[in-house]
Amino acid sequence: MSFTVVGLVGSLRKDSFNRKLYNHIVDNAPADFEITEITGWGDWPILNQDDLANMPTEIAAAGEQLRDADAVIIVSPEYNFSVPGGLKNAIDWLSRVPPAPGPFAGKPVLIAGASGGPVGTARMQYQLRQILVFLDAYPVNKPELMLGNAPQAFDEDGNLTNEVTADLVQQALVRLAEHGRKLAS
Amino acid sequence: MSFTVVGLVGSLRKDSFNRKLYNHIVDNAPADFEITEITGWGDWPILNQDDLANMPTEIAAAGEQLRDADAVIIVSPEYNFSVPGGLKNAIDWLSRVPPAPGPFAGKPVLIAGASGGPVGTARMQYQLRQILVFLDAYPVNKPELMLGNAPQAFDEDGNLTNEVTADLVQQALVRLAEHGRKLAS
Amino acid sequence: MSFTVVGLVGSLRKDSFNRKLYNHIVDNAPADFEITEITGWGDWPILNQDDLANMPTEIAAAGEQLRDADAVIIVSPEYNFSVPGGLKNAIDWLSRVPPAPGPFAGKPVLIAGASGGPVGTARMQYQLRQILVFLDAYPVNKPELMLGNAPQAFDEDGNLTNEVTADLVQQALVRLAEHGRKLAS
Amino acid sequence: MSFTVVGLVGSLRKDSFNRKLYNHIVDNAPADFEITEITGWGDWPILNQDDLANMPTEIAAAGEQLRDADAVIIVSPEYNFSVPGGLKNAIDWLSRVPPAPGPFAGKPVLIAGASGGPVGTARMQYQLRQILVFLDAYPVNKPELMLGNAPQAFDEDGNLTNEVTADLVQQALVRLAEHGRKLAS
Repeated sequence: MSFTVVGLVGSLRKDSFNRKLYNHIVDNAPADFEITEITGWGDWPILNQDDLANMPTEIAAAGEQLRDADAVIIVSPEYNFSVPGGLKNAIDWLSRVPPAPGPFAGKPVLIAGASGGPVGTARMQYQLRQILVFLDAYPVNKPELMLGNAPQAFDEDGNLTNEVTADLVQQALVRLAEHGRKLAS
Repeated sequence: MSFTVVGLVGSLRKDSFNRKLYNHIVDNAPADFEITEITGWGDWPILNQDDLANMPTEIAAAGEQLRDADAVIIVSPEYNFSVPGGLKNAIDWLSRVPPAPGPFAGKPVLIAGASGGPVGTARMQYQLRQILVFLDAYPVNKPELMLGNAPQAFDEDGNLTNEVTADLVQQALVRLAEHGRKLAS
Repeated sequence: MSFTVVGLVGSLRKDSFNRKLYNHIVDNAPADFEITEITGWGDWPILNQDDLANMPTEIAAAGEQLRDADAVIIVSPEYNFSVPGGLKNAIDWLSRVPPAPGPFAGKPVLIAGASGGPVGTARMQYQLRQILVFLDAYPVNKPELMLGNAPQAFDEDGNLTNEVTADLVQQALVRLAEHGRKLAS
Repeated sequence: MSFTVVGLVGSLRKDSFNRKLYNHIVDNAPADFEITEITGWGDWPILNQDDLANMPTEIAAAGEQLRDADAVIIVSPEYNFSVPGGLKNAIDWLSRVPPAPGPFAGKPVLIAGASGGPVGTARMQYQLRQILVFLDAYPVNKPELMLGNAPQAFDEDGNLTNEVTADLVQQALVRLAEHGRKLAS
């Protein structure tokens, strides 16, 4: 039986390092991982709570996709020391897809991020962890996937060439599966 | 000479407690405060860095409005223990309005928030403070304006009736002006 | 079979509200909870990493007490918007009790705190959650136990009279047991 | 006239990278900086609020040293993703030296940290910034001094050989002086 995972990638940029890191994660996931991505949130409206009763159908559908999954993988850049507004807007919408508790509740989550500088999105990741407390999701603690100096970590075809990070990704995926098995028990 | 302030309100909801709190702040500001609000961000696109070269003109104009101001007041709800995605998207855009450093740099900021529960947006406010480090802005430390149990704090016409909060607002506005004078010296 | 829990109380003050809250938790825990407290850390030395090879025996013993437990309950005040230095010093020592990974690894944790003001140690609790990521422990997400306005919540014999908090404590203890069962599976 | 600065170094370890970084900062400070360090906190007792009325005289004296200073420099390692308990205990004591507001109030602060790993104490620094909000102190925003991979940054005599960091230190010291001038105006 497969382990279904929903991915969220926090950058819309075509040549995004976080997109490349996400691709690496997907390509190197265990055989039983079945990963689909929630896309299209770059076109979702900014959340106005007065509009919750008229939630766009594609958002409700994404919420169901998330609710049905066994786990979540979030790969995101850090904008202004925090979660990109667009990704946060997507999370704000998804968290409101009925019924309560929202579709993140109880799920294991793997967080990853890549940055041009050395800190590797650490600041963003701790803000995201705080958000996940409210969502009642349980992120994997270790290993943390904070890829600093990202431009040196990929070849010109977008493949991850940094072996330390590649090893950490493998460990993190194993940990996610194990964490998910426990939380579902 | 007036002290020019730009306001940002993090909720688009018509009957928002944060809107009411912002209105109270504006109505009770010192006589020399000239406060204008950056509105319309509910219609701004989700930021895609590939589009920075084609920044919408209304965003560039809002960035100039911000750059020209002496201070900033941000009043916002807490969504999922963090800054609402829409407000963060607005900040992400505004931070990129050229030239560098962005329009927040060096400015004093007053942060306020109202919530239905008792904690009064504390979690959101510390995430916002971290964002402001990157933006090189300087939020006022005290008094913190964290209005919990907001439904009990306003009358049916939307006027703030909680006197403790009203006093704190007065103190905070005085502090903002003093902080701004120092930072500009 | 009993569910063994180690408690840590972050205040040394005799009349501490957090001590009273801890007592309430202990007195109202499910019948199979066997709770012991790590005491004496008020007399532990300030950690100097050069002294790790000569760890005091009572600290090593406390580390074993922790390692043998099924879960941890931490009840603490907020000092200067953060974890009290003394409690943090205790955690720093405990985290170094060999063998690696330290005695917190993999354990479920319940966090609680009481404060005189309205915010109820929220700022402390999120710093503690970040610490627990490094320790590889898994705090319960909900309900959060943030008891604000603590002086009104206890009678003169130190009994908790705030029923909302008493209910939340019950829910949190059930959740801790369930969380522990999952993590141990 | 000199610009008086009080230093706090968060590690007691003899061969500490943070000690070396602090020494570099002191040795390269502008000529008008007069820097003294608060030492001895490794021997201070763990704070018990019941003992505040009998504050040890050396702590009260350190509080006066701090109150008399124009600025503060804090250089610290990260223990368990946070401020070392010993340094936090020192801050907790210092914050209580009467009269209110405590001796940190209104002061400009420069934060720096060195770590063996790549993240360079970022997690610790943001917790410290939150603490400084309560203390009503104003840390410099930029440049942040987060020295990752510290073992490669010093020669065997303990001298900083990483030129990027040395440049950032110079910029940060200039910024601290400027920030202090503004806050004192």
